[in-house]
Amino acid sequence: MTISIQEIVDSIIEPVGSLKNTVDKLLIGDPKKQVTGVIVAFVASQYVIQQAINLQANLIITHEGIFYHHHSEKREYMKNNSVYKDKRDLIIRGELSIFRCHDYIHQYHPDGMMAGLLMALDWEKYDVEHKPVSCIVQTPNMTVTEIAKHIKSKLSLPFVRIVGNASLSCTRIGLLVGFRGGAENAIPLFEDEGVDLIIAGEGAEWETPEYVKDSVIQGKPKAMLFIGHAASEEPGMHYLAKRISTTYPNIPVHYIKEKNLFEVI
Amino acid sequence: MTISIQEIVDSIIEPVGSLKNTVDKLLIGDPKKQVTGVIVAFVASQYVIQQAINLQANLIITHEGIFYHHHSEKREYMKNNSVYKDKRDLIIRGELSIFRCHDYIHQYHPDGMMAGLLMALDWEKYDVEHKPVSCIVQTPNMTVTEIAKHIKSKLSLPFVRIVGNASLSCTRIGLLVGFRGGAENAIPLFEDEGVDLIIAGEGAEWETPEYVKDSVIQGKPKAMLFIGHAASEEPGMHYLAKRISTTYPNIPVHYIKEKNLFEVI
Repeated sequence: MTISIQEIVDSIIEPVGSLKNTVDKLLIGDPKKQVTGVIVAFVASQYVIQQAINLQANLIITHEGIFYHHHSEKREYMKNNSVYKDKRDLIIRGELSIFRCHDYIHQYHPDGMMAGLLMALDWEKYDVEHKPVSCIVQTPNMTVTEIAKHIKSKLSLPFVRIVGNASLSCTRIGLLVGFRGGAENAIPLFEDEGVDLIIAGEGAEWETPEYVKDSVIQGKPKAMLFIGHAASEEPGMHYLAKRISTTYPNIPVHYIKEKNLFEVI
Repeated sequence: MTISIQEIVDSIIEPVGSLKNTVDKLLIGDPKKQVTGVIVAFVASQYVIQQAINLQANLIITHEGIFYHHHSEKREYMKNNSVYKDKRDLIIRGELSIFRCHDYIHQYHPDGMMAGLLMALDWEKYDVEHKPVSCIVQTPNMTVTEIAKHIKSKLSLPFVRIVGNASLSCTRIGLLVGFRGGAENAIPLFEDEGVDLIIAGEGAEWETPEYVKDSVIQGKPKAMLFIGHAASEEPGMHYLAKRISTTYPNIPVHYIKEKNLFEVI
């Protein structure tokens, strides 16, 4: 039985239905080709592409874009850039197809990226309320430091960034994946949802973190953790890989987790 | 001799001339009031406002907005937020005026925020080429780790984040303050300007850092440091404070540097 790239793509889209406004599409490749194997990763990096070729898998499912931008894959200043060219050449030489799965998985019910992170943190067992771009987790009492250590351990992270009260005892946590830690998504959770702590992938530093700093100075203890964009979304892509593997048990499906992007000095 | 708030504001605007499209304005306060003292800071935080009141200075010059957003100071979801309300009440009770100085100082020649950072790093002595949103610094040979340690020491930082080759020996560095570490500003510097290392305040993690990661895997060693948005721009506001103090020697001018926003766990 042969399975086409389009068929795999359709199965990813299926729970949501076709979206009109989306960054998700086959960024490169031929949808009619037979799938030899599937690679799922947070980002179709040079390393992930090399792994796809080594593993003879001709379809990569990536959450973020190939060329370092959310919207555009071919920007003018990239034209003569050797990193861009070498990466693109390798994709073409490897006869790879790359499907971006960003908006679809976020629109699963619940958000597949959130579901993946909750599983990775072993937090599905807690009382979880899913909201459009966040979820609220009701945990047993833990300090922010204890929660930070739990996250580092579960996600194998060298560090997380913290602002606010590290010793604050928390039971209600707002969780936001990716670049959703900005003011508009995160700040309302503190008072509308009564969370003590917000955990996000990343967000502009002068938005929610400055709010948390002010809140603490005003005598309203709060805290925020930035755990890293990739760290917050890799588990969701791992979850997607398992889902594809279950749907297509005869196709080799590999989830690739890369080394942590940042270290601290 | 009495100096009005408007007069100080005019002196800050003067090197650039009045801008039409700008976030810079007197966000709150009365421009006709006599200045009792000036506070200059990266952000008009709760702490900075308290300090202004303690020091009996009724004008705050801030680089970022008061309420956690670049463009808008009064967003709907803030309406009933207690941190917003308590901060706003304190500003009003303290009879403070707050002028946002973001775009003007960036348009000084050279960019005042960049000039401040170069001074703080003791790098003005190197060959520096100022470009519209970045500058290129030609330094003696140093490894990325040595540069990171130099920055931490000069700016009193607990950590910086690094992606790429820590042991890479650098002579040409691209420097970007604030949230200018994104793909569009930063990536072209690598090949168009031949920099080995980019140092930025912050930027989206899946843009330039992912480029640097790919470049390294392709055998083109490069590195990037995110030193923190506030860390990269506080020296520029310190520089502005000195400038105001020189222009108005009879007015008390205080630059306030806050504790580092983030720690790592």
